[in-house]
Amino acid sequence: MIKIGIVGGTGYTGVELLRLLAMHPQANIVAITSRGDAGLPVAEMFPSLRGRVSLKFEDPAKANLAACDVVFFATPNGIAMQQAPALLDAGVRVIDLAADFRIKDIAEWENWYGMTHACPDWVEKAVYGLPEVNREQIRSARLIANPGCYPTAVQLGFKPLVSAGLVDCGSLIADAKSGVSGAGRKAETHILFSEASDNFKAYGVSGHRHLPEIRQGLASMAGASVGLTFVPHLTPIIRGIHATLYAKIREEADFQALFEKVYANEAFVDVLPAKSHPETRSVRSANTCRIAVHRPQGGDTLVVLSVIDNLVKGAAGQAVQNMNLMFGLDETLGLCQLPLLP
Amino acid sequence: MIKIGIVGGTGYTGVELLRLLAMHPQANIVAITSRGDAGLPVAEMFPSLRGRVSLKFEDPAKANLAACDVVFFATPNGIAMQQAPALLDAGVRVIDLAADFRIKDIAEWENWYGMTHACPDWVEKAVYGLPEVNREQIRSARLIANPGCYPTAVQLGFKPLVSAGLVDCGSLIADAKSGVSGAGRKAETHILFSEASDNFKAYGVSGHRHLPEIRQGLASMAGASVGLTFVPHLTPIIRGIHATLYAKIREEADFQALFEKVYANEAFVDVLPAKSHPETRSVRSANTCRIAVHRPQGGDTLVVLSVIDNLVKGAAGQAVQNMNLMFGLDETLGLCQLPLLP
Amino acid sequence: MIKIGIVGGTGYTGVELLRLLAMHPQANIVAITSRGDAGLPVAEMFPSLRGRVSLKFEDPAKANLAACDVVFFATPNGIAMQQAPALLDAGVRVIDLAADFRIKDIAEWENWYGMTHACPDWVEKAVYGLPEVNREQIRSARLIANPGCYPTAVQLGFKPLVSAGLVDCGSLIADAKSGVSGAGRKAETHILFSEASDNFKAYGVSGHRHLPEIRQGLASMAGASVGLTFVPHLTPIIRGIHATLYAKIREEADFQALFEKVYANEAFVDVLPAKSHPETRSVRSANTCRIAVHRPQGGDTLVVLSVIDNLVKGAAGQAVQNMNLMFGLDETLGLCQLPLLP
Amino acid sequence: MIKIGIVGGTGYTGVELLRLLAMHPQANIVAITSRGDAGLPVAEMFPSLRGRVSLKFEDPAKANLAACDVVFFATPNGIAMQQAPALLDAGVRVIDLAADFRIKDIAEWENWYGMTHACPDWVEKAVYGLPEVNREQIRSARLIANPGCYPTAVQLGFKPLVSAGLVDCGSLIADAKSGVSGAGRKAETHILFSEASDNFKAYGVSGHRHLPEIRQGLASMAGASVGLTFVPHLTPIIRGIHATLYAKIREEADFQALFEKVYANEAFVDVLPAKSHPETRSVRSANTCRIAVHRPQGGDTLVVLSVIDNLVKGAAGQAVQNMNLMFGLDETLGLCQLPLLP
Repeated sequence: MIKIGIVGGTGYTGVELLRLLAMHPQANIVAITSRGDAGLPVAEMFPSLRGRVSLKFEDPAKANLAACDVVFFATPNGIAMQQAPALLDAGVRVIDLAADFRIKDIAEWENWYGMTHACPDWVEKAVYGLPEVNREQIRSARLIANPGCYPTAVQLGFKPLVSAGLVDCGSLIADAKSGVSGAGRKAETHILFSEASDNFKAYGVSGHRHLPEIRQGLASMAGASVGLTFVPHLTPIIRGIHATLYAKIREEADFQALFEKVYANEAFVDVLPAKSHPETRSVRSANTCRIAVHRPQGGDTLVVLSVIDNLVKGAAGQAVQNMNLMFGLDETLGLCQLPLLP
Repeated sequence: MIKIGIVGGTGYTGVELLRLLAMHPQANIVAITSRGDAGLPVAEMFPSLRGRVSLKFEDPAKANLAACDVVFFATPNGIAMQQAPALLDAGVRVIDLAADFRIKDIAEWENWYGMTHACPDWVEKAVYGLPEVNREQIRSARLIANPGCYPTAVQLGFKPLVSAGLVDCGSLIADAKSGVSGAGRKAETHILFSEASDNFKAYGVSGHRHLPEIRQGLASMAGASVGLTFVPHLTPIIRGIHATLYAKIREEADFQALFEKVYANEAFVDVLPAKSHPETRSVRSANTCRIAVHRPQGGDTLVVLSVIDNLVKGAAGQAVQNMNLMFGLDETLGLCQLPLLP
Repeated sequence: MIKIGIVGGTGYTGVELLRLLAMHPQANIVAITSRGDAGLPVAEMFPSLRGRVSLKFEDPAKANLAACDVVFFATPNGIAMQQAPALLDAGVRVIDLAADFRIKDIAEWENWYGMTHACPDWVEKAVYGLPEVNREQIRSARLIANPGCYPTAVQLGFKPLVSAGLVDCGSLIADAKSGVSGAGRKAETHILFSEASDNFKAYGVSGHRHLPEIRQGLASMAGASVGLTFVPHLTPIIRGIHATLYAKIREEADFQALFEKVYANEAFVDVLPAKSHPETRSVRSANTCRIAVHRPQGGDTLVVLSVIDNLVKGAAGQAVQNMNLMFGLDETLGLCQLPLLP
Repeated sequence: MIKIGIVGGTGYTGVELLRLLAMHPQANIVAITSRGDAGLPVAEMFPSLRGRVSLKFEDPAKANLAACDVVFFATPNGIAMQQAPALLDAGVRVIDLAADFRIKDIAEWENWYGMTHACPDWVEKAVYGLPEVNREQIRSARLIANPGCYPTAVQLGFKPLVSAGLVDCGSLIADAKSGVSGAGRKAETHILFSEASDNFKAYGVSGHRHLPEIRQGLASMAGASVGLTFVPHLTPIIRGIHATLYAKIREEADFQALFEKVYANEAFVDVLPAKSHPETRSVRSANTCRIAVHRPQGGDTLVVLSVIDNLVKGAAGQAVQNMNLMFGLDETLGLCQLPLLP
């Protein structure tokens, strides 16, 4: 059994980690911390866990995280970079679900996140935890930068095209729609039910923090820098991301066959038959990305549709997938629940 | 492994049965039938099952259901009573998720359901599949009448009070609210998104088919007929029932302690601490009923709050629970997934 | 034209007042205040008002409210009782949409609201602004206590029965369901989209502040104190209250005819035909209360269904209705927009 | 007063026409037809109209539509082309809210709509009713082809750029999201609440009927054919379209100033300040299109955000705007209700 600590378990990625790990046959959660809610039984905050998770939130200062095999950071940006190094030095492996270790270019990270980075050296050593791209490095990683939700959906959708150099990488477009849980469990007016329900809007069009993360990933696949327009939207669903990707064809190919081949051995990427339209609910609660490729009217523009559950394949599920890889377990262990539909 | 057949798997109880049985370690689904969709791969209708359920819908006339150990009927009312007898005679056990075998009084059933009953003798032999009430009879039953969703929530909420004779059984009130999936996967105008969303209403106030079912169950607990006002409502959630129950106290007791004691050994009934308000999402996707007891202002009226997922504890999950009991398995086998929150 | 001031216009009752008053042919909004947002154009906070409301939020300390004919308080509880007296002394009429002047019994008010009342003498002089009950007093009132949303729906539903003494007033039950906008535009976790959406729950079962307000109103109709169990619920709709009311018949009558007669001349109360089920969306955005009366199974319990838009007939619309009465205008002026369906 | 007939008033555009016309000071609805619901009072189907609309649905064969000044067709595609010619010949003006007269190229229309056109000559004479483009022709038109919902949002968003020739018209992209009411009030499974709620998906990627309509309109603005990729999506809101438009800059300009100038005198197009993100709810129930222009990261791709209420500016409201123009009324008459927010 893997001894697991969770730092900051009161948000949505935290409770989702708890849900997944509580059903994982090799996971033993030994500590979960929260500065504000120390002493509170976890199941009192999240009644869905009653009878299954008996832990209390612990004061971060008192929790013995160094005794864990792995610690997940489900904290706001800027926390893991402060606390992870000590744990790493103590031999604990760390999976950060926030953004602290995702961007290799420190200056760019500091620019987008508005803070000075506390441990640039660990950024270099961190492995970007997208198994479909970096599986081998993940197996031996000590520190995982778990990808953002939008970046997961967008990178998996573009990967076959960009890696093969078949599309114009100077004018990629990602029109992405996220469920409201992607904004976290923070008391903010704009994500109130009465604001976000029965409403649809774009946000962050002039620049979203996931833009440099996606660009970095695509550039790495392309072997060159890419031009990307990324427009995120808020849609009134709880969970789910739908990325609609546009790319101009540079070289002809059987794109459906290409996608099927690239993902043939991936347990968590499902390429749908031609002409399909994946729905976000078809992956609700599951660690799956479903993808469809279209070429409307036989023109020169490809449209890729890519859906994930932002809290699972876009956060906690992918983190558990990374843990499985890091500890030599079957990559799918504890991640085989079927999606909830309807 | 139990060889399982499903008749009529294209509705919400059908796809939920598939979800649960596909994750059940002792279940082997060998056939699923649909008159209208014979030949269609199940996973084409329900993409959430892609890669996990490889069956096709079969023509009911051709499916070899008699070779199954158990057959679930996830059909409209009036089908199981036609087809179950032959299977039962062939030694197959049957679990009917519709209403054909729920009401013991044939005349009352015919009155509420507007049909002549096709096999009254099997109604007598059928066991009402509410394990928290009839566990022992279920173990040896050949035919299970799986309870309705409202009846499950209401009966579990009233049971401790009515069985103990502590409340006035002549004036019980059940104000119940259901998610829209309770109305089934039928193309009807009133359950369209644009009609049911951002809208709340009562329906069937003059009489709902679940009224006689609940009355029968409560009367059996009380040992006498009961007076019940039952008002169902439609609330814009997909899954979930919230029953708000009102009863006049006839005899003082520690009601919180009573509920805790009655359900102390029940795996799927969770009595919350005093002053709690169970949410429907706290049981979303799980086979759990959560209950809270209130006595507002210390008056003479008790208020019981009871929530279930109508498709799980209110339908498919309870059916699997019954199957587990009938086949001597651990009652909770395959039913331990944690609720999905948020 | 009536010169109008609004104190505290950044919440939902505030923006709804603005919507209604901006379309009112006799209304001239001259000032709107907000402590936190002074200087901000109103239409920047609420883009729905762009091109139609050109006011900026003003610092309450600087706004010349004493020059208004009437001032609406759309503030949290406890503000109007501090600021209204000076305006009233200056001859300005005041309509308080909060609870400061609703409860005549000061001790009870202080108990439920947890504050010392700042001007008990004005509580006595205030008129409870439910026109269907107090129309004549409202016409000449200087200070209106605008009713709460639940109290409006519940009192209008019970009024014909309680006033006529036809039901047992010792055991009334009001099972009420509210849309989330009833909780206001406050950044609180429990009303986030990801918490309140696809979820249903009761709250405040042990005691809600609208209980004493409803009890006071019903007692006044009955001419004696009443026994009321009031259970509010949160349902995932933006606007709307559905009150399901239960009363035991004490004296036979033609209840449908009674309701029709009582409300025959009311512009904003619509008694539906027998067997109807009013939907909340049938009054969305309108100042209408729709009511249906049922007697399930011909038993001894009446069920009254009463729906309003909590922000209109339950708040801002009723406030405008009161203003119309106070200023000798047609009671329906500016309140005739049709409900928005779907 | 204008004597108005409505053919086919049982759908969402029909009830929205009724809502708007019932509040219109110059409108007198004299007949509304429905084959299936003849004899039913309109307000029984749509309780929101109780007390305000006293008409009954009439049998189309019996309604004296020829006595009307104008007849609106709120029918499925293919009806108006059968019935409009006789009315037009009788001197009645016709506004068709369906697609029968939108596409000038008959062969293309027949190809997309799968029928033979019944009156190609009237297609030629019909005026495409987008007032911001064709105002003068509309004034004198006898037959109006009221634009589709997507085409309205997309064309108004692209117009300033395409008309001025500032962007590459060979690679335009319209990623559009529609509320579910856009699919109509038809009993179809895929738009059930339990299917469409908490779910997001694209549809019709290989080809949607609004594609040729948009292409025709943009080509007319550009003075040359255009290349357009159009991807519609279904988002779980009742009303609203959000079009996210992408265009490659061909010639530099002050794009914000351009949009503001083009729409400076339009009552129903609101260009937001730079950096804005219009929300669909900011136009809910109103005949307004709100637009924002972005140039992310100062790159070569413009992003235009355009929102409308699909039932108002995208259907019934625009139809009334056209009627106002045709009858020499103030273009905004009866269309000045403020949006409903929240």
